[in-house]
Amino acid sequence: MEIRVAIAQMNSIVGDYYGNINKIKNNIRQACNDHADIIVFPELCLNGYPPEDLLLKTQFLNDSLKSIKDVKDFTEDKDIVIILGAVECDEYYNIYNSAQIIFKGNLLGKYKKRLLSSFSFFDERRYFNPSDILTLIELNGSKIGITIGNEICFPNSSLYSAVNNETDLILNLSASVFYKNKINSIHNILKARALELSSWVVYCNMVGGQDELVFDGGSMVIDPYGVIEMNAPLFEEGIYFIDIDAEEAKRAKLKNSKSSSLCQVKNNVEIININKIVSKKRKIKSITSKIPDENELLYSAIKLGLRDYLVKNGFSSVVLGLSGGVDSALVASIAADSIGNKNVLALIMPSEFTSKKSVEDAVELSLNLGIEYKIISISELYNTYLDTLKESFKGKTFDETEENLQARIRGNIIMAFSNKFGHLALVCGNKSEVATGYSTLYGDTAGGFAPIKDLYKTELYKVAKKYNEIHNKEIITKSILEKPPSAELRPNQKDEDKLPPYDILDKILFNYIERGKSYNELLEMGLNEEIVKNVINMVEKSEWKRRQLPAGIKLSELSFGKERKMPITKKYRFW
Amino acid sequence: MEIRVAIAQMNSIVGDYYGNINKIKNNIRQACNDHADIIVFPELCLNGYPPEDLLLKTQFLNDSLKSIKDVKDFTEDKDIVIILGAVECDEYYNIYNSAQIIFKGNLLGKYKKRLLSSFSFFDERRYFNPSDILTLIELNGSKIGITIGNEICFPNSSLYSAVNNETDLILNLSASVFYKNKINSIHNILKARALELSSWVVYCNMVGGQDELVFDGGSMVIDPYGVIEMNAPLFEEGIYFIDIDAEEAKRAKLKNSKSSSLCQVKNNVEIININKIVSKKRKIKSITSKIPDENELLYSAIKLGLRDYLVKNGFSSVVLGLSGGVDSALVASIAADSIGNKNVLALIMPSEFTSKKSVEDAVELSLNLGIEYKIISISELYNTYLDTLKESFKGKTFDETEENLQARIRGNIIMAFSNKFGHLALVCGNKSEVATGYSTLYGDTAGGFAPIKDLYKTELYKVAKKYNEIHNKEIITKSILEKPPSAELRPNQKDEDKLPPYDILDKILFNYIERGKSYNELLEMGLNEEIVKNVINMVEKSEWKRRQLPAGIKLSELSFGKERKMPITKKYRFW
Repeated sequence: MEIRVAIAQMNSIVGDYYGNINKIKNNIRQACNDHADIIVFPELCLNGYPPEDLLLKTQFLNDSLKSIKDVKDFTEDKDIVIILGAVECDEYYNIYNSAQIIFKGNLLGKYKKRLLSSFSFFDERRYFNPSDILTLIELNGSKIGITIGNEICFPNSSLYSAVNNETDLILNLSASVFYKNKINSIHNILKARALELSSWVVYCNMVGGQDELVFDGGSMVIDPYGVIEMNAPLFEEGIYFIDIDAEEAKRAKLKNSKSSSLCQVKNNVEIININKIVSKKRKIKSITSKIPDENELLYSAIKLGLRDYLVKNGFSSVVLGLSGGVDSALVASIAADSIGNKNVLALIMPSEFTSKKSVEDAVELSLNLGIEYKIISISELYNTYLDTLKESFKGKTFDETEENLQARIRGNIIMAFSNKFGHLALVCGNKSEVATGYSTLYGDTAGGFAPIKDLYKTELYKVAKKYNEIHNKEIITKSILEKPPSAELRPNQKDEDKLPPYDILDKILFNYIERGKSYNELLEMGLNEEIVKNVINMVEKSEWKRRQLPAGIKLSELSFGKERKMPITKKYRFW
Repeated sequence: MEIRVAIAQMNSIVGDYYGNINKIKNNIRQACNDHADIIVFPELCLNGYPPEDLLLKTQFLNDSLKSIKDVKDFTEDKDIVIILGAVECDEYYNIYNSAQIIFKGNLLGKYKKRLLSSFSFFDERRYFNPSDILTLIELNGSKIGITIGNEICFPNSSLYSAVNNETDLILNLSASVFYKNKINSIHNILKARALELSSWVVYCNMVGGQDELVFDGGSMVIDPYGVIEMNAPLFEEGIYFIDIDAEEAKRAKLKNSKSSSLCQVKNNVEIININKIVSKKRKIKSITSKIPDENELLYSAIKLGLRDYLVKNGFSSVVLGLSGGVDSALVASIAADSIGNKNVLALIMPSEFTSKKSVEDAVELSLNLGIEYKIISISELYNTYLDTLKESFKGKTFDETEENLQARIRGNIIMAFSNKFGHLALVCGNKSEVATGYSTLYGDTAGGFAPIKDLYKTELYKVAKKYNEIHNKEIITKSILEKPPSAELRPNQKDEDKLPPYDILDKILFNYIERGKSYNELLEMGLNEEIVKNVINMVEKSEWKRRQLPAGIKLSELSFGKERKMPITKKYRFW
C-alpha cells in the first residue's frame, strides 16, 4: 500500500508562534482533506529559522513548548502523522533542534538533531545539544527514518549507515539556503543518499527570506534508484503530495545492500510504532517543476529575499538613488517586481560631474518601470559643504574627500525621504564593490537593505539581461547595460581608473574569497602580480567598512557578513 | 628545589608572525637571563587572538607551523622549557588550539585544547578540533599540567579531576577578555581550582586590544591554599617571575585529596619527562599589583582598547565631534591619554538649536585637554538641505527627519576631516543609546571606532568623574557633568522627552540584555509596565541600526556586536 506524504513547503517568520501555528494547522487540514498519511514540515518551522539568540531567552523556549502542545492538541481528531520541526527544551533548558512526531493528539516521540553544524553561517553549537539517538518510525510495515537539515549531507555518520537495511524512506526536515550552484549540489547529495541506501528520500525545505538568507523551497522526493519523482517549485510557498511505494525500496535493497552492510555503525535506535491504517487511494500525480537557469534563479532569490525583508519588517515601500548605472537600475527593477512599481521611489541626484546621459537613462528606466522619480540636484549642497570646509582644507587638493561628500549628500537625502515617508532605503552596492571597499560609507552604502551586495558586477549584468528577457521587453535599457561603469564623482571618472577590469577583478575576488586561494595560488592561475596584490590589499583594508554595511541577500557560496568572520585589526603578510 | 616560572604577558597582533616571533624570542632571552626554568606564553600568542577566519586559509596555517619551527630552532642553546600557545595543524588541515612544549630545540610534545567554547564571542567549534588527551610534564620530580583558555573554568571535565592527585602545578595559557566584574570572577575561579586540587595555578594572560576585545593581562599565580602569590599589572605588557615550591602542593594534597579522588575520570594521559636540571637560586620576590576600582578599570580598558586599535591599524590621530555633552567629553579625554593630546582634533559644530553653553563647555574642555578644536557652524548646510527638500516635503511638519539631517551633516564633516587628514573618526555613542537606537545612523554613529559603546550612560558619568580624580583636576567640567542630557536637535529638547530617566532605563536594559530577563520578570522587579514595553520595543526595533555600527570595546558581560546575535526580521511577542 502506498503511503501518501504531504510536504509543507512553509514560509515561517522567526518568533511568530501565532502566525506559524496558524499556517501549520492550515497545512494539516489540507493534508487531511487530501488523504495524506504523513505530513512533513521544514526544520524549526514552528519557531522560524534561524532564531539565533532568541534561543537564549527562557521565555522563547517555554513558548516553543506551549506551541508544540497547541499543535498536538489540534491533531486529536486528525488521522495523519505529523513530523514537525521545532525547538525542544527539557526542564534544565537543554535545547535541541528536533522533529516532533505527533499522531492523534499524542506526542509519540522526538528525533533530536545529532550532527550540529558550526561552519558558514551555522552556529548550532552555540545553542543546541547534540543527541545520539536515531529514530525509526514503523508505519504499515514500512520503516521511516528522520534527519534534520544538513545531517543529510554526511554519508558516513548519518542515519543511514546505521539502519540502512531497514529504512525504506528517509524524511529530511530542512531550512536550506539558496546560493549559486546550490540546486545542483542538493540534487547530487539527495540522489547519492537515495542510491547508497536504496531508500526513498523526502526533502522538505523551508521557503522565504530571513535577513541575509533566502530559503529556496524546491522540496523534492527521490526514489530508491536516485530518480527525482517530485520536485516542488522554488521560491514559492505551498503543500505538495506524493504517493510512496515502500516496496520499491525493499526491492532495490535486495540488489544493493551487501557491501554497505559491511560498514554498519551501531547506534541507539528508538523505534516508534504507529498504529495507523494506510488505506488504498486513487494515485495522485506529483508535481515536477522546471528548474530555471542560474540567472533566473538569482533574480528570483533577490526578489523573494527583498519582498520578505520588506513584508516581514512591516515596510510597504522603498526609496533608492538612481544613478543611471546598472546597479541601481537592477535594484529598482527587481524592487518594482517585489513590491509593486507604485511603491518604489527613485531619487535622481545629479551633481556637476553627472553626465546628462546618466540623468536621461535614469528617467527612461523610471518610465519603463512606471515608478515615481524625483530629480534633485545636489550642486548647491555640495558647494555649501566646500564653502564650510574651505578654511579648514586650505592648500589641500581635490581628492576622495570631495568624492565622498557627494555620495554622502545623496545618502542623506535618501535617508531624509526614508525618515519622512517611512520608505525602506535600498542600497545598490554589488559584491565587487563591497569586497574592494570601492564605495562611500554613509554615502552609497546608506540604507536598510542591500539586495545585490553578494552579486559580482559581472554577474549583475547577466541578471539584468535576464530581467529584460523575463519581462520580454528592454526595461533596463541598452544604454544602461553598455556604458562603462563610473561613479561620476570627478570629471571623466571610470571605475577602471582604480579597479582592474571587472572580469579580471571578479575572477580574483571569487578565487580569493569563495575559494580561499592564497597570493601564490592566484599567481599560479596566470594572474598579474601587481593586480593581485592591489586587490588583496583592497579586500583586507576594507573590513571595517564591511562591518558597517546593511544586511543583504546571500547569493554565493560565501557571502560577506555572518559567513566570513575576519578581524579588522591584523598584520598578516599575504605575500 | 623551587621551579622558577617566567610569565610572558604578551601583546600579540593577529597574523603578525614576524612581530610576534620577535617578542617571543625577546621574552625567552630575558627569562634565560633571569634563570627561569619554564616560560609560559598566552593562548595562541604566536598567531594573535582571535585569528577568526584567517584560520580557514591554508597559507596562514602553514605559516603557523613554520613559525613554531622558528621559535623551536631559536631555543637550541637555551636551558629553559617553553610553553608556547600556537595554532597546530596536521597534514589533513585538522587544526588545534595548542600549547607547544619546547626544550633545547626539540618539540617534546603538544597539548591540544580539549574543551572548545561556542558561546559569547567564542566560536572555537568553527575552527578547532577537540583533543581528548591530557598532558602531564614531569620536571625535577614535579608534575605540571596544562590547560588553555577557559578550560580552567570547568571543574568536572577538566584536567584536574583526572590527574588531581598528581598535579603540583597547573599552567593556564589564556587570552582572557576584560569586562566589568571579570577580575573578581577570574580570581574566584582560579582560587577555587587551586583549592580543589591542592595545586599551584599559573594563569598567563594576554594583554592588548584586538577590535572589540581587550585582553587585560593581570597574570596570576595562586598557591595550593588559594592565596594569590603573584599578581601582574593589568593592561600592561611585561614578563613576570615566580619561584614555585612544588612540595607545597604535595603537602597540601595530603590533607585534601580523599574526597576528590572519588570522582576521578579516566582520560588518556601523555606524560612528558623533561630532563632539565633545576638548580638552586636566590629566591626572587614576585610582583603583587594593586587592583584598581571598577571605574578605573573601565577607564584603563577603554584607553588600551582605543590605543591598540589605533596603533595596530596604523593610525596616529583621531577626530571627533565635541557637543558639550558628557559622552564626547569622555571620549576626547581618554583619547588624549591614549594617543597624546596633540593628536586629537575636536570639531564643535553648532546649529541654531545648540545652546551657547554647549559651545563654551566644548571649548573649555578642549583647552583643559590641550587638544586642537575647530568651530564649524552647520546652520548654512542645514538650511540648504531644507531648501533642497522643501518642494518634496511640502505640507510635512518638522520631525526626526530634520533632527537626523543635522546629525548627518555633522557626520559628513567629521568624515571629511578623516578623509582629508587621515585621522580615525571616533564615535561617542554609549550603550544606552546603542541599545535603544537613540542615535542617528550615519550621523553621530559615523566613524571607525566607538570606544564607549558598551558603557551605559549612568556608568559613563562615574568613569568621567574617575577621570578627573585620576588626573587630580577638573578636566571634564562640572557644567558638562551636571547638565541634563540633550541631543539639541530641536528647541528645548531633552533625552528624557523620549527615554525614561537614565537610572531607570539602564536598570531595565541591564536586566533585559545582560541578564536575559523577560517582560514579566522585569515587572516582578517593580518596574513600570509602559516603560518596560517601550524600552523592549526600542531595543528590538533597532537591531538593524546596531548591525551598521562601528566596532567598539567590550566592557560588559554581554556587549552588542559579536556576542549577541539577534535576527533583524522577527515577529516575537515579548509580552
